[in-house]
Amino acid sequence: MIYLTRRERFSAAHRLFQPGLSDIENLEFYGSCANPNWHGHNYVLWVTVKGEINRENGYLVDLKKVSKILKDRVVDKLDHKNINLEVDFMKDMIVSTENLAVGIWNQIEPGLRKLGIELHSVKLQETENNIVEYFGK
Amino acid sequence: MIYLTRRERFSAAHRLFQPGLSDIENLEFYGSCANPNWHGHNYVLWVTVKGEINRENGYLVDLKKVSKILKDRVVDKLDHKNINLEVDFMKDMIVSTENLAVGIWNQIEPGLRKLGIELHSVKLQETENNIVEYFGK
Amino acid sequence: MIYLTRRERFSAAHRLFQPGLSDIENLEFYGSCANPNWHGHNYVLWVTVKGEINRENGYLVDLKKVSKILKDRVVDKLDHKNINLEVDFMKDMIVSTENLAVGIWNQIEPGLRKLGIELHSVKLQETENNIVEYFGK
Amino acid sequence: MIYLTRRERFSAAHRLFQPGLSDIENLEFYGSCANPNWHGHNYVLWVTVKGEINRENGYLVDLKKVSKILKDRVVDKLDHKNINLEVDFMKDMIVSTENLAVGIWNQIEPGLRKLGIELHSVKLQETENNIVEYFGK
Amino acid sequence: MIYLTRRERFSAAHRLFQPGLSDIENLEFYGSCANPNWHGHNYVLWVTVKGEINRENGYLVDLKKVSKILKDRVVDKLDHKNINLEVDFMKDMIVSTENLAVGIWNQIEPGLRKLGIELHSVKLQETENNIVEYFGK
Amino acid sequence: MIYLTRRERFSAAHRLFQPGLSDIENLEFYGSCANPNWHGHNYVLWVTVKGEINRENGYLVDLKKVSKILKDRVVDKLDHKNINLEVDFMKDMIVSTENLAVGIWNQIEPGLRKLGIELHSVKLQETENNIVEYFGK
Repeated sequence: MIYLTRRERFSAAHRLFQPGLSDIENLEFYGSCANPNWHGHNYVLWVTVKGEINRENGYLVDLKKVSKILKDRVVDKLDHKNINLEVDFMKDMIVSTENLAVGIWNQIEPGLRKLGIELHSVKLQETENNIVEYFGK
Repeated sequence: MIYLTRRERFSAAHRLFQPGLSDIENLEFYGSCANPNWHGHNYVLWVTVKGEINRENGYLVDLKKVSKILKDRVVDKLDHKNINLEVDFMKDMIVSTENLAVGIWNQIEPGLRKLGIELHSVKLQETENNIVEYFGK
Repeated sequence: MIYLTRRERFSAAHRLFQPGLSDIENLEFYGSCANPNWHGHNYVLWVTVKGEINRENGYLVDLKKVSKILKDRVVDKLDHKNINLEVDFMKDMIVSTENLAVGIWNQIEPGLRKLGIELHSVKLQETENNIVEYFGK
Repeated sequence: MIYLTRRERFSAAHRLFQPGLSDIENLEFYGSCANPNWHGHNYVLWVTVKGEINRENGYLVDLKKVSKILKDRVVDKLDHKNINLEVDFMKDMIVSTENLAVGIWNQIEPGLRKLGIELHSVKLQETENNIVEYFGK
Repeated sequence: MIYLTRRERFSAAHRLFQPGLSDIENLEFYGSCANPNWHGHNYVLWVTVKGEINRENGYLVDLKKVSKILKDRVVDKLDHKNINLEVDFMKDMIVSTENLAVGIWNQIEPGLRKLGIELHSVKLQETENNIVEYFGK
Repeated sequence: MIYLTRRERFSAAHRLFQPGLSDIENLEFYGSCANPNWHGHNYVLWVTVKGEINRENGYLVDLKKVSKILKDRVVDKLDHKNINLEVDFMKDMIVSTENLAVGIWNQIEPGLRKLGIELHSVKLQETENNIVEYFGK
């Protein structure tokens, strides 16, 4: 069993808020992350897949195929976007790093499985001090 | 003459657009940076000041005083904000990294001068691949 | 189950020595790390907690509460200190990175548990080439 | 149980190809990684070992002994070398990052075991976007 | 006057040798960098251009145009290549980092000038410990 | 004219204090940096030299010769040391990053000049947020 990690990046705007709360209540709970005018981040994403090395070609998987899934299903949907307003798979979700990592997992897991590999983890860095990791369960 | 650099960080939303152009024209010129729904970045800022070392205390300047100016005049105004909508010193400016670096210079130069040191450069990283530096002239 | 990591930093002095050995014996065993005049490091700390995402607010936990525990129980006690002489929870311990990681775990585990989350790991970097990680057992 | 990680680096040339395929077939499968004229990387290696902290000296293991094994068995064999042509333990192997991580594991596992510690993982970064990790099974 | 820097990366093989010297003499002079079987690096390139900010659009220059020049004239020619054997602009040159930085300058300077901006510096990192910078004179 | 930079690292203890002030006065002026029990850092040093490329060998200078000067005159004297107590060239100096950068300049400038190259700058990072650079005048 070998683990292969691909790093990707995207820059996006978001805000944290609960629809049932007022702006003031959201600011009280989420602090400046609830700013109604939005803020943003350079997110860094590490996706780790696992499986057996193919003895014939030395690969777990052709990394270009992994990259294409990440590009089509994640990076192109998130990069230079407003995550709350424009990202289909985060619709009606609170755009916390936690929920975003889970959302990214759900976006890419089926495609990676079709490649014959298993998704191991989605790691998402919001700032250099804050990182979330999700293992699918 | 010694050069002293302080690194600070802020996360903010912005978009690039010229008020005289339509959304479509702005998207044609600025690409996804013109997204009307905003996007954002983790900006990294390096401010370099210069002057003579004080022989009595070994400092060019007490770095805490520099940090306070950066915090009051730059980081607190930009962090978790929408630069186009909420930052006084960028009002009516195109929020390019170039203009933002110049804006930051103008914000901090008078205060640093009062500390008896000279502002040498403002370096601003928008993404790990894009950096702007301004030397005040 | 989601994993959330917070990075913190502190700069401290220390030395490695066994009280039952002479300075020369300690230098033989620990090399320059046993220097009786001390040396120091910029330590980087990553603390990972885990638990279920709160569906109402999208958080595993309010990261500010985690940060406050890390600040009160770890960073304020260690930053700009001599770990051997001044840090209560390392008293009579050999200040190896291994022991320091375990000590930090013990400092923060009860407080994090009170927040309703589980401490997963304490990762401590002494230099860019040396890292220790502790999982509590 | 404590985990201790040592980082090492080496710069080497390699190419990906299957001996049973023509150059054109290899280029089709591996892309530019199959360039018959070679290319190269600055590899970064993190080796993690685990075991109990020695209560007498505070160490899991004397890191200098780990470093010596890594130097003798891995870095000196790979650094400034052509991995395909000159590295004994990669002979007749496809020099993918996956196979190289496994090869490094096999090189160092016996020596680390003799030190009374257990090898936990070999992590190998080929570029800042591509990382492989192997846990020995 | 504003300075704008673009970071690019390429992975390549090379060796250092003087055609008038024997392999042994080259190994004596250049050490393992003269290995006749090649070695390689992940090079990191920072290209800095300078000029006046365009008041109408807030840009020094459209960074995509700079990137295209770097891609066409540098990265596509060097990435996953053997610099000694395959790179036209390094033909008959000793492939030191110094010469490579000058070669890259000459490759991109005319195109950048046509964009109405001035090339300020080419900075090239061979390993995390070795960097060369060239200012064109 | 080409610029060549070598990165080195050392870990050391120090404190900031003026001998004419009491411990309390020093703590008032320098804050926790004046801790009489010392603290420490992982310093990162970048030394930049400049000159003409030697057309015969492609080098500005053999970097191994630069490294040897840095090792003998700087790193071996500072690494795992108490800078206030044990470093000859900082005797009776306030161990600020400013003074340390100047001290390092004076240590290495004559040796580098004998190599036929010119010392351009000494850049010294105390923490990831604080950097000093000295150009010799």
